[in-house]
Amino acid sequence: MKVGILGTGMVGQTIAAKLAENGDDVMIGTRDVQATLAKDKPDMMGNPPFRVWHDKNHKVKVGTFADTAAHAQLVVNALSGQASIEGLKMAGEKNIAGKIVVDISNPLDFSKGMPPSLFMSNTTSLGEEIQKAFPNAKVVKTLNTVNAYLMVDPKKLKDGDHTMFVSGNDAAAKAEVTAWLKKSFGWSDVLDLGDLTTARGSEMAVALWARVWMSTNNPMFAFKVVR
Amino acid sequence: MKVGILGTGMVGQTIAAKLAENGDDVMIGTRDVQATLAKDKPDMMGNPPFRVWHDKNHKVKVGTFADTAAHAQLVVNALSGQASIEGLKMAGEKNIAGKIVVDISNPLDFSKGMPPSLFMSNTTSLGEEIQKAFPNAKVVKTLNTVNAYLMVDPKKLKDGDHTMFVSGNDAAAKAEVTAWLKKSFGWSDVLDLGDLTTARGSEMAVALWARVWMSTNNPMFAFKVVR
Repeated sequence: MKVGILGTGMVGQTIAAKLAENGDDVMIGTRDVQATLAKDKPDMMGNPPFRVWHDKNHKVKVGTFADTAAHAQLVVNALSGQASIEGLKMAGEKNIAGKIVVDISNPLDFSKGMPPSLFMSNTTSLGEEIQKAFPNAKVVKTLNTVNAYLMVDPKKLKDGDHTMFVSGNDAAAKAEVTAWLKKSFGWSDVLDLGDLTTARGSEMAVALWARVWMSTNNPMFAFKVVR
Repeated sequence: MKVGILGTGMVGQTIAAKLAENGDDVMIGTRDVQATLAKDKPDMMGNPPFRVWHDKNHKVKVGTFADTAAHAQLVVNALSGQASIEGLKMAGEKNIAGKIVVDISNPLDFSKGMPPSLFMSNTTSLGEEIQKAFPNAKVVKTLNTVNAYLMVDPKKLKDGDHTMFVSGNDAAAKAEVTAWLKKSFGWSDVLDLGDLTTARGSEMAVALWARVWMSTNNPMFAFKVVR
């Protein structure tokens, strides 16, 4: 499948690498291709420059946001919460219209220190706001409640015995994303929360995620809905 | 132990009944004892009147909020989120000073329909606001992420293989509450999130709780931190 991943950070890289390894035709999108490839210093989190990753993952094409969305049958929003709507606008309404947009972003605000607060929550969600801005896309919120390593390899933790949530307004799109999570990454327990307003639940759960992470000093955990 | 439970709703009743069964000296507190005992109709949720429950649980003493807090070595706030701070004020600062207050409440706002939103979240929590209002109490937030049946009998679900969170500023109080959760109710996986600001995490997770409940039509579930 042709997949377009918006965002060249750690989440975008991890998903792109896994899908390329699976045999998908993957393009990863950035605001400025030359600038991204020219970076020669680690990012703020200490991750190596993009080109170091790309040398190891040269099958992944690199393009602008618009190139990437145009390439894609399936679009993945792996941008930061703050950059998501602007990045999708740069990708172009016409390039995402009618397509599934898997939205992984969280509305994290790091400006007040750690743990982050959410710059929107409770009575709306970033998933909903993206859907409102792009009414012709089929936004499915998922993967936003675990770290990047677990997104693409849930079996790394207790043989995958934990839960992934999906929220979206289009039932067929949700079913397709659910099948994709299972086939591409090995998720087994995928729970459909309902329409996109339910993304408020999974995004707000990230407030708990951040505190579990800080109290346990270990990001390799996940929530399971025991039922 | 002498336990005082503020709130005669379903959560207060369930905890009071369990602790009385365990042999604790339990008082349950209400704003107006005569009015509570005089009720002869089911509540909004269809639960039978208080006196029907009390006839079956006559070992539980009934008192005002102030009587109940004065009686208690351990205070449990089982009031609704909206009523919590006012109820604790009626209980009396001097009656809770120096005591552990186990805060089970969630800042739920049902005024905009279901699922509820939170009337405070993200940059504060109800647990923190209670602590600010009663600086001499030792507030420990816990039990707010499961329904009342699971609070007092976690083993009812998958032999208790799920997680309860505790947040609080007083380490000794948290340790005491953790031991109490294990001994009185049978909790096995109790995760200390940190100081009371971490109650933002467990309270916001209730937004996810509500949506899992609505999508599965089953309140008998709990979150497990798989790690």
